[in-house]
Amino acid sequence: MKKLGIVGGVAWPSTLDYYRAICSLSVAQHQSACLPGPPSIPEMTIESLNINKSFSLRGGAIDDHESWSEYDAYFRQALVRLEAAGADVAIIASNTPHNRFDSIIEGITIPVISIFSAVADECNRLGIKKMLILGTAPTMNAPNFADLLSTRGIAASAPSRLENREAVVALISELYSNRIDGAAERIRNVVNQELPAAGTLRSVCLACTELPMAFPQLADKARIELADIQYINTTVIHARAAYESLVR
Amino acid sequence: MKKLGIVGGVAWPSTLDYYRAICSLSVAQHQSACLPGPPSIPEMTIESLNINKSFSLRGGAIDDHESWSEYDAYFRQALVRLEAAGADVAIIASNTPHNRFDSIIEGITIPVISIFSAVADECNRLGIKKMLILGTAPTMNAPNFADLLSTRGIAASAPSRLENREAVVALISELYSNRIDGAAERIRNVVNQELPAAGTLRSVCLACTELPMAFPQLADKARIELADIQYINTTVIHARAAYESLVR
Repeated sequence: MKKLGIVGGVAWPSTLDYYRAICSLSVAQHQSACLPGPPSIPEMTIESLNINKSFSLRGGAIDDHESWSEYDAYFRQALVRLEAAGADVAIIASNTPHNRFDSIIEGITIPVISIFSAVADECNRLGIKKMLILGTAPTMNAPNFADLLSTRGIAASAPSRLENREAVVALISELYSNRIDGAAERIRNVVNQELPAAGTLRSVCLACTELPMAFPQLADKARIELADIQYINTTVIHARAAYESLVR
Repeated sequence: MKKLGIVGGVAWPSTLDYYRAICSLSVAQHQSACLPGPPSIPEMTIESLNINKSFSLRGGAIDDHESWSEYDAYFRQALVRLEAAGADVAIIASNTPHNRFDSIIEGITIPVISIFSAVADECNRLGIKKMLILGTAPTMNAPNFADLLSTRGIAASAPSRLENREAVVALISELYSNRIDGAAERIRNVVNQELPAAGTLRSVCLACTELPMAFPQLADKARIELADIQYINTTVIHARAAYESLVR
């Protein structure tokens, strides 16, 4: 089986979720095939970065490339180490760096599976036509994710109101420290203001790999419906895409 | 801060516990120092091995070095990759390979913190004089851990009865797949047969990094007392020793 490289630590609670998801898929595969011995798990190398450092290296406007050069290099160097460790394919276990994806993967020779692409594929499978994007400041402010979704027939946008974007950013900073009390309610408040209930299913993309922690029911699930809102779990969708790339 | 290398995946549930323990210690340190930004976490590289492979590479008697050469090399190569990734210090997140520790670390130039030594230090701090060792077949059959503890004034031994050692091994194989139902009771049964209650505190070393999973109350704790038995959590003790080596 191929070896997976993971750039993790940004933040660490979602790295746990990625690793658990990939190992659990492997255990299920091993058991359904009735194979002997302890469950076979793909070899992986995880480069766990310091989010305090990556946070401090964030640049300005997402197309001000110079301002992001140190940030990009911090992630690129981790990918280079994963290549050197023998990874056949890699992922960056976080949405935010995907706003700088093209620059980060410059010169990397192994495939790097994009979370934005994996989520777009899943949204197409689910037949989603309209979606609210919640994430870190770079993910909500940059057009990258919404532009990609648009090419796939999905009208997606971040919260239009500044105070709602700020509420999401504040919530994520608490999730970095693993504090989840009241998080689901705060997300619902933002959704209700940005996508008023209209009798049909509303779709919300949790486009920061920490946000799914707000919904314990969402653990290990790609999506969940709570009343008339379906939440899309980018962490699990990305982890599954990575696992499938190993066994293909 | 120094960078930590972890040889993990043997098995993966305890690798989660190590990573969570080290990150949680870092969060606590960041918060108690009232530092700004997302909590600073040490950079880490985790080489997650395939336990199905390491299991199949196990040799015969622990001093039949030739029979263990492929097993030793599998772990040694992971340590070499951690060195190349820039780790300043490393751990092997599992008790079993520590029975082959001297051979595995041959030629490795960075310090590798032994779980057996870290646990011996903690047992001395706790004033333990006698202890039952529960672990995988190599850990219970080889004299390595008990010999080390003996030099530190601790009389330790694995279960004397074959059926009790077999019960522990069977239990561990279920924990590899994350199944914990009834595990605590099965461990207590072994303890009661091997260390009959005598009105004083009985000490049991959970010397396989999966065994603490049997006691959810033990999560993130170095030890726990349940009635007249104290269980020693080798996973947490080892993770703490690793963390302390980074901040020293």
